[in-house]
Amino acid sequence: MEQVYRYIEEHKDMYVSWLQELCRIPSVSTQDRGIEEASSMVEALVRQIGGSAESIPTSGHPVVYGEFFSGKTKTISFYNHYDVQPEDPIEQWECDPFTAEIKDDKLIVRGAADNKGALMARLCAVHAYLQVYGQLPVNLKFIVEGEEERGSLNLSDFIEQHPDKVQADLCIWENGIVNDDGSFELKLGTKGILYVELIARGANTDMHSLNGAIIENPAWRLVWALSTLKNRGEEVLIDGFYDRVATITDGERRLLEKQVYPEKETLSRYGLDQFLLGLSGMPLKEKLIFQPTCTICGMVSGYTGKGSKTVLPSEARAKLDFRLVPDQDPEEIVQLLRAHLDLHGFEDIEIVARKGSRAAKTDPAHPLVQQVMKAAEAVSGKAPQIVLMNPGSGPMYQLCQQFGIPTVGFGVGNSDSRKHAPNENIFIRDYVTGIKMAAAVIHELA
Amino acid sequence: MEQVYRYIEEHKDMYVSWLQELCRIPSVSTQDRGIEEASSMVEALVRQIGGSAESIPTSGHPVVYGEFFSGKTKTISFYNHYDVQPEDPIEQWECDPFTAEIKDDKLIVRGAADNKGALMARLCAVHAYLQVYGQLPVNLKFIVEGEEERGSLNLSDFIEQHPDKVQADLCIWENGIVNDDGSFELKLGTKGILYVELIARGANTDMHSLNGAIIENPAWRLVWALSTLKNRGEEVLIDGFYDRVATITDGERRLLEKQVYPEKETLSRYGLDQFLLGLSGMPLKEKLIFQPTCTICGMVSGYTGKGSKTVLPSEARAKLDFRLVPDQDPEEIVQLLRAHLDLHGFEDIEIVARKGSRAAKTDPAHPLVQQVMKAAEAVSGKAPQIVLMNPGSGPMYQLCQQFGIPTVGFGVGNSDSRKHAPNENIFIRDYVTGIKMAAAVIHELA
Repeated sequence: MEQVYRYIEEHKDMYVSWLQELCRIPSVSTQDRGIEEASSMVEALVRQIGGSAESIPTSGHPVVYGEFFSGKTKTISFYNHYDVQPEDPIEQWECDPFTAEIKDDKLIVRGAADNKGALMARLCAVHAYLQVYGQLPVNLKFIVEGEEERGSLNLSDFIEQHPDKVQADLCIWENGIVNDDGSFELKLGTKGILYVELIARGANTDMHSLNGAIIENPAWRLVWALSTLKNRGEEVLIDGFYDRVATITDGERRLLEKQVYPEKETLSRYGLDQFLLGLSGMPLKEKLIFQPTCTICGMVSGYTGKGSKTVLPSEARAKLDFRLVPDQDPEEIVQLLRAHLDLHGFEDIEIVARKGSRAAKTDPAHPLVQQVMKAAEAVSGKAPQIVLMNPGSGPMYQLCQQFGIPTVGFGVGNSDSRKHAPNENIFIRDYVTGIKMAAAVIHELA
Repeated sequence: MEQVYRYIEEHKDMYVSWLQELCRIPSVSTQDRGIEEASSMVEALVRQIGGSAESIPTSGHPVVYGEFFSGKTKTISFYNHYDVQPEDPIEQWECDPFTAEIKDDKLIVRGAADNKGALMARLCAVHAYLQVYGQLPVNLKFIVEGEEERGSLNLSDFIEQHPDKVQADLCIWENGIVNDDGSFELKLGTKGILYVELIARGANTDMHSLNGAIIENPAWRLVWALSTLKNRGEEVLIDGFYDRVATITDGERRLLEKQVYPEKETLSRYGLDQFLLGLSGMPLKEKLIFQPTCTICGMVSGYTGKGSKTVLPSEARAKLDFRLVPDQDPEEIVQLLRAHLDLHGFEDIEIVARKGSRAAKTDPAHPLVQQVMKAAEAVSGKAPQIVLMNPGSGPMYQLCQQFGIPTVGFGVGNSDSRKHAPNENIFIRDYVTGIKMAAAVIHELA
C-alpha cells in the first residue's frame, strides 16, 4: 500500500482541485439549486476513473449510482450525497460560501465536510488504487443521493426499484471526523428521526385580543398540549414512547466510556454554563448517544414582529423532531403521539408527520468492521474512536440495516467542521488522510 | 338640529372623502410608519374647520391637540387616536389594506373602525354645526394621540405637562359601534391592560437539533413557563392576580343583563362551535366584561418556514396581554408575574413589560351621561345599549378617571368591523349616523 499512499501524496493538488470543483456547485437540495450540475459531475467522474455510472431518477432528485465491478466475491458500497445545506446566514461566512478558498491548510466551503469531502476522498482512493494496481480487490458500489439534507425523501424509490444495487457485504457510511489527536472516528450507527408539525386552530381569522376572554386561543392550546409531552426532567411523557428502547449492553458501555466528548470546548463555543440537567461525563454521553429526544425545532403563532400587537391568534404551530434509538419505530411513535393528544383532550390538534427513519447500529465485533478498524489504525497510527451511534440521523436503517448490511462511517471532517453552519471547513491534511483511509479499507477488505 | 342633519346628508360624499384621505396614510405606530403625515393632516383639518391646533411632542409620537373655544362654561373633550394596527396578515385582505375601497356601502381599510372613522365623524360634526349655526354651544377639546395601538406609551407626557388641556366636564371616548338594530352602543368604561414579552434564551446560536439531547432548549422552557401561568379552566395561576378584582354590583348586573351579545352571529362569523368553556348568556357576558384575561398574542422560536429544518433554537419569545379590571394595578401584576416565574424556577426568563393602564368605569347615572343617552335615542330612534366596560383597553383611567372626569364612548363601527384584523371596515351609513350623533351630543350638552 505504500505505493498507493505515495501516489496520493504526489497527486494531492489534483485531488484537492477535483474537490474544489465539486464544492463550487451550490447543490442546495431544499432550494433545488445546482442539482443537475452536481449529479452530472459525480457521474462523469466515476466514468473517468474507470467505473460505470448512471443517474437514476426518483420522485425527487436523482441518485447517482456508480459501479466498479472487479469480478471478486466481496462487494463494498459507499453511501454519500451530493447535496448540501443552504448557506444562510451568509453574513457570518468569512469568505464566499461557494468559492472554495483554502486558508492555512483549511478548505472553507459549503459541503466540504458534509458530504462532498468524504465522497471525493473515496473516488480519489479508487483512482489512486487503479493507477497503482490496475485493478480492484473487491467490487465497489457508489450510491450518491441528492436529498440527504432534506431527509432522504425519495431514496426509498431507489431502494425499492433497485434492490440489486443496494446489496453489499459492507456499506461505508457517508461521514465522520478525524479527531484532534489524529485518530479516526468510526461511526457504527445513527439515531432515527421523526419530524412532525402540530397545528392548533381557533377562530377562522386573527381577532382583537379582547376576545381572549371568551374565545379559545390556539396558542394556549398548543402550549398546554406541548407541556404534556415532556416534563422539566426531560422525560418524554407519551405513553409507550420508551417501550422499545433497547438497553445498553456492557460492551456498548465500555466503548462509550472510551468515546471523548469535548465538554469544555462545546460549552465555551456556544456560550453555555452547563449541559442539560447539569449532566457531564458518562451520563452526558449516554443521553447524547443512547437516549431518544423530543425537540421543539420551531414554534409560531400570532404577532411576532417588533413591538406589540394585541391579537388573538387564529392558529398556532410547532415543529418537533424526535431523535429515535433502536428499536423505536417512527410510525408507531406518530400513533402514540396521536393517542397521547387525544387522551389529554387535544383531539383538535392536527399532526402533520413527515416520513421518519429508524435508528440503526452495527455490532462493533463484526469481522468486516474489525477490518476497517485495522485499516484506520494502519493509516493514522492510532486506534480509532468508535461512535456507536451518531446522534444525528440518516437513512442507514432503510438502506442497510433492514437488509442486514453492516455499516461503518468515516470521513474527512474535524471537531470544528461547522456542518450546517457558516464557515464549513475541512483540513487539507485530513482530506489526504481520508483518501488513504478509503484506499486502505478497499485493500484490507479484499 | 334638523338643519344640521340635512347639511350632513348633503355633504356626506365630502365627509367620506376626508375619511378616505386619512385612512390612506398607513400610520402604524408600532412600526413608526406614516406618523408625521397623519398627525399633520389631523392638525390641518382642525384649523380648516375653524379651531386652533398644535402638535405636542412626547417621548414618542406627538399628540395633536385641537381646541374650539366658544366662551361657554361647559367643556367637552374628545379622545381619539390617529395611529392604527399593523395590516398583517396581508394575504387575508380582500383588497389593499390602505386603498380605502368602498364596496356595497362598506369602507374597507385599516383604521376605518379603529379609530379614524370615529375621529373624523366628530370633526365633521363640528364642521357641519359651525356651517349651520356659526358657533358652538360648548367648548370643545380634541386630544388625538399617536400611540394608542401600542399602549398609549407616552400619553402621560402630555397629561403631566398639560393638565389644563386635559380638564373637561365630560370626555367622549374614542369608540363604539352601531348595533345591528340601529341602536348606539355607549361605552362607560374600559378594561386596563398590561402587555409583556417573555424571552427565554439558550445557546448563542441556533444549533443542529441533535443537540436537543444535551443542550437546553429555550422553546421548551418558554412552553413550560407559559403552562404555569394559566390552566385549562382559564384560571390565571399567578399568586395574587385576582386579589384586587372588584365584585360586580347588583346595578351593574342589571345593566349587564340588558346588554345584548350576538352569540350566534359571532360563532358563525368566526367559524366556531362554542365559546370558551362552553359559556353562554350571563356567564359569557360576565367573563367578557368583568373578568381579567391572560392572552398569548404572539409566540416565536426557531424555524417557522415551510417544510422541516432540524434546528435547536437559541431563543424563544412570547407576547402576552393581560386585560385588567378594577382595581387591578398593571405595575403590581408585573411584580406578581416576576415572583411567579421565579417561584417556578424560571428566573432566567426575561420579562419586557410595556407601561400598562388601569381599568376605568363611569357611573351610568351621571347627568352628562344621561344627556348623551338622550342624544343617542334622538338620533337613532332607539334606546342605546350600555356597555359598562369595554373589554378592550385604553388610557381612560390615566386621562379621565384619575381626575374625576366622566367618560362615554360611541363610534361608527359595527358588530363585524374586524378591528385589529384583516378587512377592517365600517358602513358608510353608520359613519353618517355617527356624524349626526356627535353633532347631537354637542347640541344636547349645551
